[in-house]
Amino acid sequence: MRTVLVIGIGLGGPEQVTLEAVAALNRVDVFFGVEKGTAADELVALRRAVCERHATTRPHRFVNAPDPARDRAPASYERAVADWTAARAEVYEAMLRSELADGGCGAFLAWGDPAFYDSILRVLAAVRSRGGLHLEVEVIPGVSSIQALAAAHKVSLTQVGRPLMVTTGRRLAAGGFPPGVDDVVVMLDGDTAFAAIDPEGLTIFWGAYLGSPEQILVAGDLAEVRDEIVARRREARDRRGWIMDTYLLRRPVDDA
Amino acid sequence: MRTVLVIGIGLGGPEQVTLEAVAALNRVDVFFGVEKGTAADELVALRRAVCERHATTRPHRFVNAPDPARDRAPASYERAVADWTAARAEVYEAMLRSELADGGCGAFLAWGDPAFYDSILRVLAAVRSRGGLHLEVEVIPGVSSIQALAAAHKVSLTQVGRPLMVTTGRRLAAGGFPPGVDDVVVMLDGDTAFAAIDPEGLTIFWGAYLGSPEQILVAGDLAEVRDEIVARRREARDRRGWIMDTYLLRRPVDDA
Repeated sequence: MRTVLVIGIGLGGPEQVTLEAVAALNRVDVFFGVEKGTAADELVALRRAVCERHATTRPHRFVNAPDPARDRAPASYERAVADWTAARAEVYEAMLRSELADGGCGAFLAWGDPAFYDSILRVLAAVRSRGGLHLEVEVIPGVSSIQALAAAHKVSLTQVGRPLMVTTGRRLAAGGFPPGVDDVVVMLDGDTAFAAIDPEGLTIFWGAYLGSPEQILVAGDLAEVRDEIVARRREARDRRGWIMDTYLLRRPVDDA
Repeated sequence: MRTVLVIGIGLGGPEQVTLEAVAALNRVDVFFGVEKGTAADELVALRRAVCERHATTRPHRFVNAPDPARDRAPASYERAVADWTAARAEVYEAMLRSELADGGCGAFLAWGDPAFYDSILRVLAAVRSRGGLHLEVEVIPGVSSIQALAAAHKVSLTQVGRPLMVTTGRRLAAGGFPPGVDDVVVMLDGDTAFAAIDPEGLTIFWGAYLGSPEQILVAGDLAEVRDEIVARRREARDRRGWIMDTYLLRRPVDDA
């Protein structure tokens, strides 16, 4: 039997992890990394910094997880993700068997919290359902980017008694501001979908590199600040080579 | 100038706070409590336990915030909340002026994370907009109940590329499972609204006292498990005198 921990590590550096996460980090024999692409170097370094700061009580090593090719322009997005999940489950099973001893403890560190648009739990569930490996999974929650966004702007994500929608840039671009809600948090938006929707009546709270010393915040009437956000986002991404950002779109409700 | 920290402390006991929250707890001169009602004793004790465990480097004291009466059966829920916010802003301003020295640091501890349906940021904003007190507010995010729910059930709150709605028991009871989404997290449900909606095609992931030793989890087809959840919820609440619970309703999407 092998144990795999999925640990939410927050985003702002080593101090945003929970004490529970610190305890979990000190159970780990092998940290499996899943970073890739141009952001790799700095993000890998941030992840290592979390381990170096906190995983201090036992020997451990780092293994880079293989990353099967993914169809980036598929006819069906969901189908492409399903195919990719199946491919990853196969290579992860082989990796866990060869890199993690029976009885050992491995870990995947999730930026923010694994509950929002993170693929690792789905892949591990697929590994388990393949049936070839006895795997015990534990999840340690962390502070997500959307909570760091709310904290940085000192706002609640919800208005009194009203629903909040969490969605993706892809969805916002395809459908505009969704009907039936007044608050929408957008994640995974690489194409500034906020700049292309009807801004009428909307306020935006935007943040990048949340919780880190490089944090950038912009808030205001969407029509007034959207160009500034697009420009600052592009400039920051060009300079650092990567960006992580998220935002809340709010239609303020008159409480009275 | 007075500083007020709003600190998310998670839910599962002293180990679910972040290192950032621990540092913040050690800046505090006065902890303001806002508990009330039948749950008071045990919840106050849990909050004190967090402070006793972590706020160890400076003297501090506890002050119970006054709680203006609230109309529990109002014609307009939003209006009643707005009136209550205004009344709390008035008494909180007086409390902060008399209990917190100029230059001092006060704190409100939020269960979970203050970004989801917590009133304290709204009340502090109302205090600031009254203009009578120079107040600097800082927010330290924490692990929310919905993340603890997802972690305990080892699931993501989101399905691939799909939106998630976060809403209240009141809304679910009034409108049923919302159109246009496949995943709905329900908070603030004191009346088991899940048991009264059409269960067709829905899975529920329910949890109470999340992250604590008394944690209770039930998951399954809504039609099959809803009666069990209602019964276990009632039994636990009767025994302990209070309950905190939340749940995810999911319409599983066929990825292939």
